[in-house]
Amino acid sequence: MKQMIAGIDIGGTKIAIALATADYEIKTKRIFPTQTSDGANRILERILDELGILIEQEQAELLKIGIACAGPLDVRQGLILSSPNLPGWFEFPIVEIIRRRMEVPVVLENDANAAALAEQKFGAGKGFNNLLYVTISTGIGGGIIADGKLIHGRTGNAGEIGHITVIPNGIRCGCGARGCLEAVCSGTGIARRFVEKIKSGADSRVIGRVQNIEQITAKHIAEAAAEGDPLAVDIWEETIFYLSIGLGNLIVMFEPEAIILGGGVSMTGEQLFRPLREQISNHVKILPAEKIQILHAGLGAESGIYGALALAGQ
Amino acid sequence: MKQMIAGIDIGGTKIAIALATADYEIKTKRIFPTQTSDGANRILERILDELGILIEQEQAELLKIGIACAGPLDVRQGLILSSPNLPGWFEFPIVEIIRRRMEVPVVLENDANAAALAEQKFGAGKGFNNLLYVTISTGIGGGIIADGKLIHGRTGNAGEIGHITVIPNGIRCGCGARGCLEAVCSGTGIARRFVEKIKSGADSRVIGRVQNIEQITAKHIAEAAAEGDPLAVDIWEETIFYLSIGLGNLIVMFEPEAIILGGGVSMTGEQLFRPLREQISNHVKILPAEKIQILHAGLGAESGIYGALALAGQ
Repeated sequence: MKQMIAGIDIGGTKIAIALATADYEIKTKRIFPTQTSDGANRILERILDELGILIEQEQAELLKIGIACAGPLDVRQGLILSSPNLPGWFEFPIVEIIRRRMEVPVVLENDANAAALAEQKFGAGKGFNNLLYVTISTGIGGGIIADGKLIHGRTGNAGEIGHITVIPNGIRCGCGARGCLEAVCSGTGIARRFVEKIKSGADSRVIGRVQNIEQITAKHIAEAAAEGDPLAVDIWEETIFYLSIGLGNLIVMFEPEAIILGGGVSMTGEQLFRPLREQISNHVKILPAEKIQILHAGLGAESGIYGALALAGQ
Repeated sequence: MKQMIAGIDIGGTKIAIALATADYEIKTKRIFPTQTSDGANRILERILDELGILIEQEQAELLKIGIACAGPLDVRQGLILSSPNLPGWFEFPIVEIIRRRMEVPVVLENDANAAALAEQKFGAGKGFNNLLYVTISTGIGGGIIADGKLIHGRTGNAGEIGHITVIPNGIRCGCGARGCLEAVCSGTGIARRFVEKIKSGADSRVIGRVQNIEQITAKHIAEAAAEGDPLAVDIWEETIFYLSIGLGNLIVMFEPEAIILGGGVSMTGEQLFRPLREQISNHVKILPAEKIQILHAGLGAESGIYGALALAGQ
């Protein structure tokens, strides 16, 4: 019997389960689609079945299980409160159920918190005691490590970085408030601002690259901006401006050693990072902004499963 | 010999020193003006002399000293980096000097962090594990307690709440950036916005109450707003709007149990707190904002010395 830890990464489209040694070497891993039509209990049974197969395969003695899952959660009570991607998971006591069935301790964190931990332990944030992980994709999420520890807040939902206000009375966000960072600077937000301009009559080479303007993504816009398309350049610069305000707010609040950016929009690389580093220093004058590193996430799509394992290894 | 702790609160105008029992009962206290023309070493000698007198008077065996001081500091290295109110205190190693002379452990925190700790231990924040202390007076400062602990950041300057951006490209702040919460909503910021309107020709009953419009303070404006003076009402409502954006940003980031407001502007009481509670929920939709308490600080001017003692008792 080998002592091992397990990580479970529950995403909207797929679920990953891995077994690793106590020093985080992944020995085996399974990935299967999240079939949301199955309902919470069926998905849970599948998770437990797959986990059981891996344990038997590896002849493992399980020490602990870490679960990373999209929020909102109540991590203190171990509940998935509700999930847009997992219908039927309402106040679902996943920690208690898995703990009873597997008879080992189980830890739950939201996916962005888990990714922050993973980046600190295995990725771009190694060696930092104060770091912020910000993922910019369909939405904007984040995890905060201050003085070496993840910040949780009252119910474990601290770090809702996507919902700080960057434009007073700005565009309505999916959350219901106005001018949230997510509404303006997420992949969806970038595309929406661009498409609005097109609808108001602006021209761009991006139009010829899609069948329907509703198919335009932040990637199209970043590419066209790199080529000098004026509308795309405007939208990209506006994105950098508001993103630098948002990240600047995080810096004055936390004085981190580094901000680590992940998610689809961060894949634009230096086209995002270079102007962002420059502009953050316009918004942060009270602290030496140049000492704070703005880094690209090191784990990419693996951050969920490594985050879950990092939780299990704590 | 009685075992005691000491607190030293170094402010711009006065310095307070207190000796207390290990359970924070203040036994004796001295307050003297900060004579800045004397230079750092002379002030330090005065602090040590006064402390020595108190120790002898109380026949105390000193266990630990806590120091609360306006920033910027480097709390990890125990330095006062520079202080607008204490000329000559440049990278001043106050912790090391006092530790050597008094031969006890010495802890340094900035005044807002110390006040946050004091409010949690003795004031309005009793029993809360996640709380934000925000002081609104000439400037806006803050201290953050997350999961039971003060957040420090890289060099101990986390919590610069006054310098989050609430108006993109807004008015220039003393720090050099634009549209900071402090520039807009501090006592100084409130008065400045009001006086600008007067200079552009607006009328207000406040004009008849001062000899010179430069003497107008936030207090005059709050009073006139309570009486229905239209310009004062406008400026006060604008203050509430931007303050609720700033505090809303803190809430989505930290998910605290409470935000505790101190400082001169908070003395306006329910005129500030009632509309603030209402408006915060317009900006915070991702979390149940109504569960987060917005409270008035309980310690007032005593927060510095109680903060210093709380540090010494840790």
